[in-house]
Amino acid sequence: MEKLYVIKIGGNIIDDDAKLSAFLSDFSNINGKKILVHGGGKLATRLAEKLGVEQQLVEGRRITDAETLKIVTMVYAGYINKNIVAALQGYHCNAIGLCGADGDVILAHKREHPVLDYGYVGDVDAINTVLIRSLLNQNIAIVFAPITHDQQGQLLNTNADTIAQEVAKGMSKEYDVSLVYSFEKSGVLLDANDDSTVIDRISPSYYQQLKTKQKIFAGMIPKLDNAFTALNSGVKKVIIGKAENLEQLVNGSSGTTIENE
Amino acid sequence: MEKLYVIKIGGNIIDDDAKLSAFLSDFSNINGKKILVHGGGKLATRLAEKLGVEQQLVEGRRITDAETLKIVTMVYAGYINKNIVAALQGYHCNAIGLCGADGDVILAHKREHPVLDYGYVGDVDAINTVLIRSLLNQNIAIVFAPITHDQQGQLLNTNADTIAQEVAKGMSKEYDVSLVYSFEKSGVLLDANDDSTVIDRISPSYYQQLKTKQKIFAGMIPKLDNAFTALNSGVKKVIIGKAENLEQLVNGSSGTTIENE
Repeated sequence: MEKLYVIKIGGNIIDDDAKLSAFLSDFSNINGKKILVHGGGKLATRLAEKLGVEQQLVEGRRITDAETLKIVTMVYAGYINKNIVAALQGYHCNAIGLCGADGDVILAHKREHPVLDYGYVGDVDAINTVLIRSLLNQNIAIVFAPITHDQQGQLLNTNADTIAQEVAKGMSKEYDVSLVYSFEKSGVLLDANDDSTVIDRISPSYYQQLKTKQKIFAGMIPKLDNAFTALNSGVKKVIIGKAENLEQLVNGSSGTTIENE
Repeated sequence: MEKLYVIKIGGNIIDDDAKLSAFLSDFSNINGKKILVHGGGKLATRLAEKLGVEQQLVEGRRITDAETLKIVTMVYAGYINKNIVAALQGYHCNAIGLCGADGDVILAHKREHPVLDYGYVGDVDAINTVLIRSLLNQNIAIVFAPITHDQQGQLLNTNADTIAQEVAKGMSKEYDVSLVYSFEKSGVLLDANDDSTVIDRISPSYYQQLKTKQKIFAGMIPKLDNAFTALNSGVKKVIIGKAENLEQLVNGSSGTTIENE
């Protein structure tokens, strides 16, 4: 099967023009099929402040009322997405920016929660692999903004990590998919305060050992659980590491690689 | 050749939620290949006001400084474009929203002017017909936001009428293209104040007669000159009429049809 990289870029890079440029230059140099998923960074929060739209965050998730949805649609699907695409074109990487409504590429439903109303937040139901494959086959890199839709005219704000995971899972029947989460640390660390203690490789059995010995920083456990869920759904590897080292993450010489035995 | 409709929707419809919904429902009912090009309406101006970004208009064109480019990218390529796409999906019309940077679909250059600095305003150089055809062949309607790029990382604000015309011209080698300009009047009028005086059909020779007899409202002359330029570049017909009558415009029973003898 052909290789496909699905790469999630975190907000800390989005917020830093120089780092973002360097990252996009590295992304444009990756050979083969590739998909970039971006989050929002602080731009949406800052715009909301300027416009006097009050932001509520519950458990790290933005409560998306109608005004907030308008702002994230503008910032994520407009400003950030189109600037990333234009920058990639500048690096001679043909790219197309999509939100989930475009070509019906990511179908979601409004989140139902027994207690909390998240507002216009979407949980992903399906990925349109036909359109994605058609674009990849034209050697176009796809850049996803974290906005989906419900097929009934409603846009929905959706977690970018989740989009990356769902796209990687959806494409794994047709491609040998590596899912790369780039963030501010060098990988999964044995000592959360020491960036030199990166674990190179985690298999399911080793993960059980690490958890039993309480060697994994609690904040990493949901990320790792998600990584193993992705592997169980057909994704070949999940790689977690520093955005600045994208080239090394992709060739396996940096970061933590999570894969089956 | 297969038929293709390239339809420009004016700002007055964008600004009116009920009219926009009705228009998009009509658009979704058009059989066959179709492209929608939208302008910006008053939303960008209103957002600029709220954010304290001063707007300059010269000869009806917005002077696009860096802050204004940010706003139009958010509003046109983000908010308006994605809401139109989501609404079309709600009407069971598969659609994809693009700006010119996406898939390198509309290449432009920053406008040079001997006296006036328009800022980040783009004049169109080329249309990527390969990607457009590939999407149309997947029965996806394309929705263009009036933002282009220069292939060097720079987004550019571009007149939506011009985008519609350039896309229509670019596609006319491969399709039987009808270019539809929908606006607030019922068509080209013999009496600018009487909406019942629509001229059904204008050929080049009839246009010369009308101009000689000064029967054409001066404001319509640039639009009509552009229409004939489009015809001379291979577009089959240009139809000008009321957005509310989209179905009738497309089947030729409303508006003014401009075509060669």
